[in-house]
Amino acid sequence: MTGFSEDTSAQVVAESFTGTPDPRLKQVLTSLVEHVHAFVKDVELTDAEWQQAIDFLTATGHMCDGTRQEFVLLSDVLGVSMLVDAINNRKSAAATDTTVLGPFHMVDSPPRELGANISLDGNGEPCVFAGQVRSSDGTPLPGARVDVWQANGAGYYDVQQPGVQPERNLRGLFVTDDDGRFWLRTVVPRYYPIPDDGPVGRLLAATKRHPNRPAHIHVIADAAGHAPLTTHVFVEGSPYLDSDTVFGVKESLIRPVTDVDDPDRARHYGVANPFRLIEFDIVLDRVVSNEVRR
Amino acid sequence: MTGFSEDTSAQVVAESFTGTPDPRLKQVLTSLVEHVHAFVKDVELTDAEWQQAIDFLTATGHMCDGTRQEFVLLSDVLGVSMLVDAINNRKSAAATDTTVLGPFHMVDSPPRELGANISLDGNGEPCVFAGQVRSSDGTPLPGARVDVWQANGAGYYDVQQPGVQPERNLRGLFVTDDDGRFWLRTVVPRYYPIPDDGPVGRLLAATKRHPNRPAHIHVIADAAGHAPLTTHVFVEGSPYLDSDTVFGVKESLIRPVTDVDDPDRARHYGVANPFRLIEFDIVLDRVVSNEVRR
Repeated sequence: MTGFSEDTSAQVVAESFTGTPDPRLKQVLTSLVEHVHAFVKDVELTDAEWQQAIDFLTATGHMCDGTRQEFVLLSDVLGVSMLVDAINNRKSAAATDTTVLGPFHMVDSPPRELGANISLDGNGEPCVFAGQVRSSDGTPLPGARVDVWQANGAGYYDVQQPGVQPERNLRGLFVTDDDGRFWLRTVVPRYYPIPDDGPVGRLLAATKRHPNRPAHIHVIADAAGHAPLTTHVFVEGSPYLDSDTVFGVKESLIRPVTDVDDPDRARHYGVANPFRLIEFDIVLDRVVSNEVRR
Repeated sequence: MTGFSEDTSAQVVAESFTGTPDPRLKQVLTSLVEHVHAFVKDVELTDAEWQQAIDFLTATGHMCDGTRQEFVLLSDVLGVSMLVDAINNRKSAAATDTTVLGPFHMVDSPPRELGANISLDGNGEPCVFAGQVRSSDGTPLPGARVDVWQANGAGYYDVQQPGVQPERNLRGLFVTDDDGRFWLRTVVPRYYPIPDDGPVGRLLAATKRHPNRPAHIHVIADAAGHAPLTTHVFVEGSPYLDSDTVFGVKESLIRPVTDVDDPDRARHYGVANPFRLIEFDIVLDRVVSNEVRR
């Protein structure tokens, strides 16, 4: 190994990985080195800035524990999580758009009957959340699983407030009926800040970015013969829809909370008339031996 | 903020930094996002690989403490430290080449008289280390400071073996004589592995890279009116000269350990004749109001 210079650095380092047994690891490291070296050269990183970067990464690592993942937050606010989501969820134009899983799906959602109320603390404005799961050719999908979790009307998930919120508050795993439909009672979620008392919060402050995510309900939908789909439905009119700090919003995923005056539907959903409703249909792509059929 | 996609991701995220008050921070973050997104797209990073990356960074952060800096090691083995060194130490062709500072200059070197023996534990083969500090036009530089530190004959620095090696073993801060010359007694250093019991060591193992650095003596030279220079002299014939795991070797910095039979020089250096000698002259660039004169 000789000839390390500004011009040759990435090549010299890439050569050190030529003996890597796993070809994918070799490919990833070679590309990583090319892009990281290109970044350092592009900005002509100073010694002091390099030291700042070392200190930032170290503080980010020290912030991580069993319930806090600061590197995931960093990936989120740099749009890396959403880019990985986009690359790994290419789909047909008909299928519902995906968005990030987020860090709060850390406990299993409890199985619940259609129409159940997942708001165990009653914190928030009551509403019905309902929709239909269909295949991309329009066929309804009975027996599809719809996993739902969300923050309460104060903007907190159950796992953020142990002892304050009931366990498994605002979580439920539902199965669609013979017509592919699901419905449940919940509350309208509130927007909330990602945890911003660590290095990522300081980065956001230094760039005058706010730490907030607009109000949303998380959904994972899964049906036999179809690609599982992880997404959110965003609440129309919520603050921060145009500046989600993790870049998760897609226009196609925004839904209004509508006022419904319909005694028959109220009876069907098991609520008093009139009521408020968020409707969100979900379209899944079929899979045939690991290929998505579009 | 709308329209996040594989094609637009870097641009959308860069736009989130437009309100950053510090223009340099804005520049660095914008470039970082461009290059990191380009990397993710280049390799089409999978969800599982993204999770591996999060876990690797977290483990690297958890390995860092007051005496261990795993992110610096990561920067070193990816050649980033040497690239930052190259960018920040552009110099005239006449000046001595630079290389990385390394992590072991964590204590001040004690001032010592010319000819002093810095080997306090006697571990290693005795030798004289000597040279002349000159300006790039050839003028000797009296009163220049030469800061020297190195591993012993077993490949360990004093700070790695507290209680085993004497404090400040193999460290010394010297001042050149009227002819710009310095000389001191020491031992021939041994090659050594960087700490490899953490995530960076596992990365090296997975890529079949060894963790070793060839034998070297660290030097910082500093003279009035000149740019300070941080470098090593590498011991000719040492293992790993062609594969330094931190990419620090430059051909111009390799010197032989010569056998000298010269009673007058032995008397001058204060050693018995014959003796072994590493000679290393150091050439500094002048600075005039922060500009390097070549």
